[in-house]
Amino acid sequence: MIITNQIIGDFIQTRQTTEEICAPLTQEDYVVQPTIDVSPPKWHLGHTTWFFEEFVLKKFHPDYTEYNPQFSYIFNSYYESMGDRILRTDRGNLTRPSVEEVYRYRDYVTNHLSEFLDDHLTDEIAGLITIGIHHEKQHQELLFTDIKYILGNNPLLPKYSETFEENTIEKQKSKWLKIPEGIYEIGHVTTDFCFDNELGKHKVFLHNYKISNKLITNEEYIEFIRDGGYNNFNFWHAEGWDWVKNNNIYAPLYWHEINGEWYQYTFKGLKPVELQAPVTHVSYYEAFAYAEWRGHRLPTEFEWEVAQEFFDWGKRWEWTESSYLPYPYYKKISGALGEYNGKFMVNQKVLRGGSVVTSKNHTRYTYRNFFHPHLRWQFTGIRLAKR
Amino acid sequence: MIITNQIIGDFIQTRQTTEEICAPLTQEDYVVQPTIDVSPPKWHLGHTTWFFEEFVLKKFHPDYTEYNPQFSYIFNSYYESMGDRILRTDRGNLTRPSVEEVYRYRDYVTNHLSEFLDDHLTDEIAGLITIGIHHEKQHQELLFTDIKYILGNNPLLPKYSETFEENTIEKQKSKWLKIPEGIYEIGHVTTDFCFDNELGKHKVFLHNYKISNKLITNEEYIEFIRDGGYNNFNFWHAEGWDWVKNNNIYAPLYWHEINGEWYQYTFKGLKPVELQAPVTHVSYYEAFAYAEWRGHRLPTEFEWEVAQEFFDWGKRWEWTESSYLPYPYYKKISGALGEYNGKFMVNQKVLRGGSVVTSKNHTRYTYRNFFHPHLRWQFTGIRLAKR
Amino acid sequence: MIITNQIIGDFIQTRQTTEEICAPLTQEDYVVQPTIDVSPPKWHLGHTTWFFEEFVLKKFHPDYTEYNPQFSYIFNSYYESMGDRILRTDRGNLTRPSVEEVYRYRDYVTNHLSEFLDDHLTDEIAGLITIGIHHEKQHQELLFTDIKYILGNNPLLPKYSETFEENTIEKQKSKWLKIPEGIYEIGHVTTDFCFDNELGKHKVFLHNYKISNKLITNEEYIEFIRDGGYNNFNFWHAEGWDWVKNNNIYAPLYWHEINGEWYQYTFKGLKPVELQAPVTHVSYYEAFAYAEWRGHRLPTEFEWEVAQEFFDWGKRWEWTESSYLPYPYYKKISGALGEYNGKFMVNQKVLRGGSVVTSKNHTRYTYRNFFHPHLRWQFTGIRLAKR
Amino acid sequence: MIITNQIIGDFIQTRQTTEEICAPLTQEDYVVQPTIDVSPPKWHLGHTTWFFEEFVLKKFHPDYTEYNPQFSYIFNSYYESMGDRILRTDRGNLTRPSVEEVYRYRDYVTNHLSEFLDDHLTDEIAGLITIGIHHEKQHQELLFTDIKYILGNNPLLPKYSETFEENTIEKQKSKWLKIPEGIYEIGHVTTDFCFDNELGKHKVFLHNYKISNKLITNEEYIEFIRDGGYNNFNFWHAEGWDWVKNNNIYAPLYWHEINGEWYQYTFKGLKPVELQAPVTHVSYYEAFAYAEWRGHRLPTEFEWEVAQEFFDWGKRWEWTESSYLPYPYYKKISGALGEYNGKFMVNQKVLRGGSVVTSKNHTRYTYRNFFHPHLRWQFTGIRLAKR
Repeated sequence: MIITNQIIGDFIQTRQTTEEICAPLTQEDYVVQPTIDVSPPKWHLGHTTWFFEEFVLKKFHPDYTEYNPQFSYIFNSYYESMGDRILRTDRGNLTRPSVEEVYRYRDYVTNHLSEFLDDHLTDEIAGLITIGIHHEKQHQELLFTDIKYILGNNPLLPKYSETFEENTIEKQKSKWLKIPEGIYEIGHVTTDFCFDNELGKHKVFLHNYKISNKLITNEEYIEFIRDGGYNNFNFWHAEGWDWVKNNNIYAPLYWHEINGEWYQYTFKGLKPVELQAPVTHVSYYEAFAYAEWRGHRLPTEFEWEVAQEFFDWGKRWEWTESSYLPYPYYKKISGALGEYNGKFMVNQKVLRGGSVVTSKNHTRYTYRNFFHPHLRWQFTGIRLAKR
Repeated sequence: MIITNQIIGDFIQTRQTTEEICAPLTQEDYVVQPTIDVSPPKWHLGHTTWFFEEFVLKKFHPDYTEYNPQFSYIFNSYYESMGDRILRTDRGNLTRPSVEEVYRYRDYVTNHLSEFLDDHLTDEIAGLITIGIHHEKQHQELLFTDIKYILGNNPLLPKYSETFEENTIEKQKSKWLKIPEGIYEIGHVTTDFCFDNELGKHKVFLHNYKISNKLITNEEYIEFIRDGGYNNFNFWHAEGWDWVKNNNIYAPLYWHEINGEWYQYTFKGLKPVELQAPVTHVSYYEAFAYAEWRGHRLPTEFEWEVAQEFFDWGKRWEWTESSYLPYPYYKKISGALGEYNGKFMVNQKVLRGGSVVTSKNHTRYTYRNFFHPHLRWQFTGIRLAKR
Repeated sequence: MIITNQIIGDFIQTRQTTEEICAPLTQEDYVVQPTIDVSPPKWHLGHTTWFFEEFVLKKFHPDYTEYNPQFSYIFNSYYESMGDRILRTDRGNLTRPSVEEVYRYRDYVTNHLSEFLDDHLTDEIAGLITIGIHHEKQHQELLFTDIKYILGNNPLLPKYSETFEENTIEKQKSKWLKIPEGIYEIGHVTTDFCFDNELGKHKVFLHNYKISNKLITNEEYIEFIRDGGYNNFNFWHAEGWDWVKNNNIYAPLYWHEINGEWYQYTFKGLKPVELQAPVTHVSYYEAFAYAEWRGHRLPTEFEWEVAQEFFDWGKRWEWTESSYLPYPYYKKISGALGEYNGKFMVNQKVLRGGSVVTSKNHTRYTYRNFFHPHLRWQFTGIRLAKR
Repeated sequence: MIITNQIIGDFIQTRQTTEEICAPLTQEDYVVQPTIDVSPPKWHLGHTTWFFEEFVLKKFHPDYTEYNPQFSYIFNSYYESMGDRILRTDRGNLTRPSVEEVYRYRDYVTNHLSEFLDDHLTDEIAGLITIGIHHEKQHQELLFTDIKYILGNNPLLPKYSETFEENTIEKQKSKWLKIPEGIYEIGHVTTDFCFDNELGKHKVFLHNYKISNKLITNEEYIEFIRDGGYNNFNFWHAEGWDWVKNNNIYAPLYWHEINGEWYQYTFKGLKPVELQAPVTHVSYYEAFAYAEWRGHRLPTEFEWEVAQEFFDWGKRWEWTESSYLPYPYYKKISGALGEYNGKFMVNQKVLRGGSVVTSKNHTRYTYRNFFHPHLRWQFTGIRLAKR
């Protein structure tokens, strides 16, 4: 019963938090998709609801009446198992269902599910609810980053909030942590929730290495810019160099040079770049180039996981040198949820840590985030390593 | 004074009508741009306002304070003379200014301008106001067609209105009107308003021709479909055939085949195709192919203008065989408004007539509408001619 | 019999001339397709041969054995009636059949056809042979322009010939010819060969106009460049301006600015631009912009045809303001050859005259050449008109 | 002196072998580039020559006269350090220099270098010659695969050779090799030549695994096709599935289904698929999907390297699950040759082994080949692993 209460409590809390994130939005902010990777907030609200409806209510609730049978077409993200769905590029054209309607849909599903759970919480269902909660927490983070992109690319540069501080400063002195060579255990071990890609526990051999206790700051990054880092192919992957040239990249995302000074769009609007804060909104290509320029490198995800207890992580996702690949004992979950992680394990880089907009209790030291190397709209930072 | 009153009345009436067209929209409907040619309704509202602000208030009102200096960047459509502007493809990403803000902007400009006109209506200003009114009427039509596109491409196929009837039936018996060869005068002649592309009056020689007194109906068009018209290259231009193949075109825009019956999305939602109504939402390529299939042809814009008094036009824009080119005495207006028409006189076809969503008193028999040959989101129909 | 001899003579002469044009090529020059509009010389050699094989030998010669049944797939250009064909973009990947093989194919068809014609020259066949000859003459011109493109875009800028002079100078003094208003007859009237698009004779009314007796020279065009013509949107169509910006256009095709002087790649290699020669290799967009800058305009094709007897045309194709459209009495030929002209009558501009690389006896004053407005690899020039 | 003789011998032998590979080509076969990844044979001939000229002759030979200063622009592949170069997509438009000229260029450089080496073979130069030889051997393999692509995509499907047998059959019985868990050493250890990406020796921990002693055969792969492997998203990465859908992939490259039987284009022309031969010309996406369908997986490059002594590899490059990443002690060579490997270490998969067209003495068990996951024109096969 306690577990029941807790999971229902978590569920309701999560649903609520999602809506609180959207509270500062105008109705129009909910609708648009300024680039393929950014989904409309309305879509996130509907999709996280569809997830619970599709994977729990429709499967387990005997008397459940679907809210609207057309919504599956609209709010399915990428589950081939779940039938046809709208083209990803068309998400930003959906003026209907309206924001109000989507909130009604949310309430409908939240209420039906809460009620249902009171009496029917089997282990299987609890497992699905837990996944659904964590799934929604992932979308909470995406809501933050997508909202930032929507507002930060508007010529009016509107604020999201007067108070949301995204810059945090690491005050400790910078130093190299030395980690001795040896066999280390990697992967999730407790009975707490984790995603399938963190399982199962396994061993890796690491050679001696050093890893910085701090992230690279804006001040350090500006040195790279000043030194012509964006104009010297030597620091870049061939594909990174093409990306720089084709997209006229010359600074992190959201940076503006105004009268020789660097400004950065933040949730609080346009602000001077805070020199002591960790640099963020850089692509893997930029992270790699920065490390090359410094004569160092990015850590692997294993080096990160082993050393993480010595640094205060969680304010910036950290690009690693590791590609997103299955662990030796990786097994896809069966059924549609098997599409959650495994099918993305190609052409992406692993990020470790968490960010200022990661939901509470969502990340952990074994968590494997992943993005394509050119993407910058997440809060992504740089930690260096070396032999 | 009477003229003053009338022009101010027209101005206020036009501003109001624009807003009435948007009345059935949800706030979200105002924002999106599902295809490059369709602008967000909010943008139309702002752009027509910017036009008056930019070309009248800022030029002639000595004490006018611009509503928001950033709006010029946002609401300029294509006037190179007026400085930088947002990429056309980014119009649908503008969640701000909000719908309310844009309405406030409208009110601000409408009120300032009405007041200003009371005392300052010179001939020059009256001319600009008149252009501005006709400009806004063009956008009223675009509002209708863009709204139809936004709703008609939504998987929920929502209605715009319970009552707006877009299908009109021509009840007369179909016959060929015979027009004798001779020299005819073409172009605008009265002192009423017209666009620069309708001037100046000039002569063309026409050989004997016949022109239908009626538009092609849906029933006639379905025959073309049934006869494999979309599968037989012989009826098509090479570029039309490529367009058909590359876009899987098999029927007019908004048509759906459901269980062997043809349905059409209309302002009133999805309805069975009305057989006796004129076919609409066809491209020039389709209009041409249909005419070829029938062994006839489309009329030139001159043949249309000469014969127009014998048919009841105005419910569908009619594709002509004429390319959009300057008349022999064409002169661009000087200044930024010279960009209104002339710079589009390449690669487009002339349409004549008007449509069910053309604003009252906006079109006339010398009016030259123009679109690229593949476009279908306007209410476009087919009239045949032959020798 | 005389006619027979003459047509066979013409046929053999034409086949030979085609091969003479290719004589200076290396074997490699025959193969490539550096841009979609430029076909490999080898392909021209095969395609003109296929034309005779397909439309005459296979249809009329009872014992004819096709040279190679796969060649139809390779050498059909755009005749949908003639079955599947290789993608246009793949023409430049065809290393086989080899150049030698294609010449053998030419000989095979030339010989079989010559022999066959000795005894079987009906009127129908004579008509087809005549079309085939004129078709091959069109490809002779394309061979010149395609070879120029292949060599002129090679970083080594190799010569085609030591002696082929493409620049011709019009020595007469420049003046405006005044043509009085009236009804004029347009179109082909003699019994000589012409293409279907030049038929049938018809009347147009022309208002008074003036037309220059000379083409615009390089010297005059350099003035336009110096005056910032390529940087001022006012002179350009909207689509022309986009074309300039997207392709970094700043001078005619084949022009190079070296140490502040203009050079031009010619058949004789890189040479200083000859100031008194007519400008060439300009697009319609550039021709139009130049005319705008001068405050004049391009003539229509009718104005050109009426005035042509007063100027010495034939060294440069001349862009007209006319779109390529059917004449009032236009009828497509029946059968596959109906695809020759009619299906291209959209989105193209008419050019009149002829060029230094047009085959002898190929053009005439009613000849209607046509290209898309952005194309420049033909020898295209500018003649001005005004009211 | 012996070393000198041997390296000069190797050099001359390598230069000769390259030319022997091209012997069966027609002159036209040397020129084209039917897809971006396939370079014209002529370009390979020139590029491998440029490599020796640029990195040895121009640097170390005091009296050397460059063959043609423009060739660096044409034959530089991707060395940013070496200045401007022709766009990769334009390689197939280079009709000049001619094939003969490129062979003259080869002779010139080969002769000057042989002569020079007689007296000046320092260790540094020997190192560069050795890299140049291995570089040319890599291009020998590319010559084979590029030639196959050029001929195999020609509608005439010409043979490269009457005798070159690309299918080899592994006769041993298929079985799972069991490899015990433990720490293994990876990387190149001898003093023989290797590329920088194989250095330096380091340790990895491997868990118990099983790896097949044989490659997957065509017969086994046909089972996958028959079972609908290309139609079931479950087996594919999301990006692999998009690739299948967007490119209509339904079988390995070069396969043709004719009357229900599978045929394969080979160097000897079109042949029935040899059932017992290893499948080849599959992408990583296909290799992965096949493994998924079988319920197994691909080995990592480390699992492969550890187990390789137990199987007879070298007839097909084998896709591994490993991404192409730097080894723990990886260091880029300094200078322009630092661009050889490191800058490609993103978004590519490692292949191990070698193929029927890999040059003699070129590959070794530590050799790391790499390609993007969608590419198929190399001889790529599938080996399975499992826990």
